[in-house]
Amino acid sequence: MRDERVKRVLKELDGMGISQMLIVDPMSIYYLTGVYVAPFERFYGLYLRADGRHAFFLNRLFAVPEDVGIEKVWYSDTDAVMDLVAGYLDQDAVLGVDKDLKAGFLLPLVEQNAAAGFVNASLAVDLTRGVKDAEEQERMRVSSAINDAAMAQFRGLIREGVTEREVAAQMLKIYQKLGADGYSFEPLVAFGANVADPHHAPDDTVVRAGDAVLFDVGCIKDGYCSDMTRTFYFKGVSERQKEIYETVKRANERAISMVRPGVPLCELDRAAREVIEDAGYGLYFTHRLGHFIGLSEHEYGDVSASNSRKAEAGMIFSVEPGIYLEGDTGVRIEDLVLVTEDGCEVLNHASKEIEIIL
Amino acid sequence: MRDERVKRVLKELDGMGISQMLIVDPMSIYYLTGVYVAPFERFYGLYLRADGRHAFFLNRLFAVPEDVGIEKVWYSDTDAVMDLVAGYLDQDAVLGVDKDLKAGFLLPLVEQNAAAGFVNASLAVDLTRGVKDAEEQERMRVSSAINDAAMAQFRGLIREGVTEREVAAQMLKIYQKLGADGYSFEPLVAFGANVADPHHAPDDTVVRAGDAVLFDVGCIKDGYCSDMTRTFYFKGVSERQKEIYETVKRANERAISMVRPGVPLCELDRAAREVIEDAGYGLYFTHRLGHFIGLSEHEYGDVSASNSRKAEAGMIFSVEPGIYLEGDTGVRIEDLVLVTEDGCEVLNHASKEIEIIL
Repeated sequence: MRDERVKRVLKELDGMGISQMLIVDPMSIYYLTGVYVAPFERFYGLYLRADGRHAFFLNRLFAVPEDVGIEKVWYSDTDAVMDLVAGYLDQDAVLGVDKDLKAGFLLPLVEQNAAAGFVNASLAVDLTRGVKDAEEQERMRVSSAINDAAMAQFRGLIREGVTEREVAAQMLKIYQKLGADGYSFEPLVAFGANVADPHHAPDDTVVRAGDAVLFDVGCIKDGYCSDMTRTFYFKGVSERQKEIYETVKRANERAISMVRPGVPLCELDRAAREVIEDAGYGLYFTHRLGHFIGLSEHEYGDVSASNSRKAEAGMIFSVEPGIYLEGDTGVRIEDLVLVTEDGCEVLNHASKEIEIIL
Repeated sequence: MRDERVKRVLKELDGMGISQMLIVDPMSIYYLTGVYVAPFERFYGLYLRADGRHAFFLNRLFAVPEDVGIEKVWYSDTDAVMDLVAGYLDQDAVLGVDKDLKAGFLLPLVEQNAAAGFVNASLAVDLTRGVKDAEEQERMRVSSAINDAAMAQFRGLIREGVTEREVAAQMLKIYQKLGADGYSFEPLVAFGANVADPHHAPDDTVVRAGDAVLFDVGCIKDGYCSDMTRTFYFKGVSERQKEIYETVKRANERAISMVRPGVPLCELDRAAREVIEDAGYGLYFTHRLGHFIGLSEHEYGDVSASNSRKAEAGMIFSVEPGIYLEGDTGVRIEDLVLVTEDGCEVLNHASKEIEIIL
């Protein structure tokens, strides 16, 4: 058990008036216990209580270390596991549940009134995970440093005749040679009009002169994820492409320049969006400015118009404005930033100057 | 929309007295619509109603074909999506929900009484998916044929000094050359004592003479998953290893010989377990006999002591008895079987005779 982290979660729960919680996100459980299990369809849960009588529900097929510092409750595939869990709950208190707890596990607890009520208490874990401790910050730096080094090599894979898929197929090995453990998400590689789809998956599109070339990529190192986007041009760039590139770059830089403790996250989104709106492309920036990241590539926390939460030292999130012109072209420029005591540290160092790949 | 499949789901729901359902499993949605989206943390739902007024809830970032044959309801990251969903529900009827619907999406519907009640209705989809139609059966055959061909090559990767990780690293390319689209799950490769952990992940263990060598592997082809386990021996095999191998093989064959429409699935588990118990290894067969498989590697449906459901023509599941002697050795032999009108078709054709890799 990582006692300091558990204590922070219990403190958040206490602020919500909750004395017990069932956590099921394997990454949250890893964060709190150091144990990682991929449970697939099986139930896997960490039960935390204000009085310290925690329990760890494990299928007999899961391999976990002997000493986790918490009571282990084993079950088999043939057991009615949620009846077992119900027996551990304080029936007279509301149960906080992880937002990821599946209906198939939640509804049996609801049906047998295993607690006085059921509320989504994920925020307690999410807010805790959202503020990285020193060990986590260092791992995030290392992961992004690998991503910077990898981006320089990815750029070199763009040659006459190459397809998105062929480029993407070479990326894992590059990451691994640089010391990464794997992808943090399947890499996005997009050429030309495909760049206008923010979630385009690499296909057999061949790069052509004048294309925008977008890489949205990240790796995992020691459990922590990086995530960066750069947009290049192949052989040449039009005036219009330059205009939208510089607009997105200004939006990225404007938002980053405002990051410091106390700034509402929605204001960062607002600031970047204003730059793009003022240039006349407001309709074409179709997503939020960013997302939190750490052990998972997408963690709780938007940098969007709907999140008025204030930045705190230790938070790490992406700043990724974009412009998407359907059927034509697009740009996205994304960095990860760590909020510091008096501003922020940009975790990515790959150049954001417009570059033509010759 | 795959109308025939939707009709089968609605019929199952009707049998449960349910007139509306919210489906969220991306694979179930693919099965019913032909659309596949990886929604990550965003809400993605297919709402089916007995009266045919279905709706498909989609985030604006999801790329889906123009014509799906169903009303599309788009939302943005800044919308309160579950309020939107609530507006479509029949407030006076119970809502069936997918077992995978997350608490973060379910609890807002519960809190605003968006339906007359909430029940886990996954069974309606799961039972439908559990009986494969002719198109699916053919795809499952093709996927397993690739897996058979791949197994022959994997066996050839075992050489003096090689590690589990080195072997596993070569598998994806072999699958792809054979026409597969990717893994159905990360391959398990285990040598020696590691075989005794049914979920062992490939590590730097080097193969040694006398080791058991286990491959539990599968690929995806056109959306459908294969899954097979074979256990070999490197350089030589002891009498005790032979004994447990032959026991597991008999258990596998005994269960398969009993597969036909009408046999309770728990009896298959029972039959295989008896073979292993009679040989004195009952305590060391620590998991269920098998699981259903199709679009997902693990689909609803156990072949275990707790499942008294009867086999039906069109079902496809694994038969995978094992013996695990901790710190020592182990064996698992797994095939996929398709229940036919009068018996079963074994989808795997790789030999199950004991084999020594020289």
